Amino acid sequence: MKIGIIGSGVVGQTIGAKLVERGEDVVLGTRSPQKLEDKRGMGGSLGEWVKKTNNKGRVATFQEAARHGEIVINATAGTGSVEALKAAGEQNLNGKIVIDISNPLDFSKGMPPSLTVCNTDSLGEQVQRAFPKANIVKTLNTMTTVIMVDPSQVAGGDHHVFVSGNDAAAKARVTELLKRWFGWRDVIDLGDITTARGTEMILPIWVRLWGALGTPMFNFKVAR
Amino acid sequence: MKIGIIGSGVVGQTIGAKLVERGEDVVLGTRSPQKLEDKRGMGGSLGEWVKKTNNKGRVATFQEAARHGEIVINATAGTGSVEALKAAGEQNLNGKIVIDISNPLDFSKGMPPSLTVCNTDSLGEQVQRAFPKANIVKTLNTMTTVIMVDPSQVAGGDHHVFVSGNDAAAKARVTELLKRWFGWRDVIDLGDITTARGTEMILPIWVRLWGALGTPMFNFKVAR
Repeated sequence: MKIGIIGSGVVGQTIGAKLVERGEDVVLGTRSPQKLEDKRGMGGSLGEWVKKTNNKGRVATFQEAARHGEIVINATAGTGSVEALKAAGEQNLNGKIVIDISNPLDFSKGMPPSLTVCNTDSLGEQVQRAFPKANIVKTLNTMTTVIMVDPSQVAGGDHHVFVSGNDAAAKARVTELLKRWFGWRDVIDLGDITTARGTEMILPIWVRLWGALGTPMFNFKVAR
Repeated sequence: MKIGIIGSGVVGQTIGAKLVERGEDVVLGTRSPQKLEDKRGMGGSLGEWVKKTNNKGRVATFQEAARHGEIVINATAGTGSVEALKAAGEQNLNGKIVIDISNPLDFSKGMPPSLTVCNTDSLGEQVQRAFPKANIVKTLNTMTTVIMVDPSQVAGGDHHVFVSGNDAAAKARVTELLKRWFGWRDVIDLGDITTARGTEMILPIWVRLWGALGTPMFNFKVAR
């Protein structure tokens, strides 16, 4: 399947590499695709990423990545997500599933981060409002990157991932992909895109748990 | 031990009854202690509560309950917590551990509730600022009432409760009490009282999980 990823930091790189490994046709979108040797945040350089995918993964502009994808994944930092998706082009998102992994974390005032939007709105809703003809599915934003693509890394995979979105078919499709691509066993459908408030607002306790436990290698399980 | 509970709704009643059962000397504080036969929110009447405790639990004013308690428990609705604790009397809280179970839920605009404070502040911090000589320990605010006092009700008790507070000794004491009183096995110390932002901001996903699962009988486990 053709996948376009918007954002080439550690989240975009990790998801992209895993999807290439799963046999998907991946284009990783970035602001400056010509700068293949620059290090990207916590990820490596995009040249290293391409090598890691045995030269199967491609690097291109946001626009080219979005145009390429049957499904588009937003892996940008939350503070720049709407702008990055606008640069990708609304016409390249319309009618498609957009998997939104971003979180509205504001690090500008130091640690711990606060949220740029919460409580009566969410970044998931902002993205859905900005692109009303795309089917936004918020998911994977409640755990560290390596667990997103390999839930078996902690507690044998016995924990949860959530989906939020207005379109039931889009959520069902993403649920199936989370299981097939990454091995998620238990995906909880929280409801419409307003439920993204809940998963984004879990970030403050997530950040504090990282501090308290001394590791980001944990995830939430809804124990029943 | 002498325990004063501020708030006589379902949380105060449930915790109070369990503490009487555990042999503690409990005074349940309420705004109108003379109205023993009125039903209290989702709880029963206070007359029924007294009977349920085999007449060992007592009902009194907020002031009398706080004065009685070596430890004071805030079990009021979050929107009225600071006011209720002021009515209980700052001099009756100073130097004591105040276990704060309240959540800043605002139901005035319908369901789902929003929070009256979040992100860069929390109700736990507001309470601590209002009573600087009390040791506020935020805990038990992330699950439904029956699970607070009996974690074995779901998943054999294999899930978590958090504590937030500025005083390490107070948190250690409350941790020990959570284990002894209610059977909690795994208590996570998140850090100072600002970490109450994290546990209070978990409420939006908690409310949506209740809707998605059709039951409040679940709790968060930090899977590692």
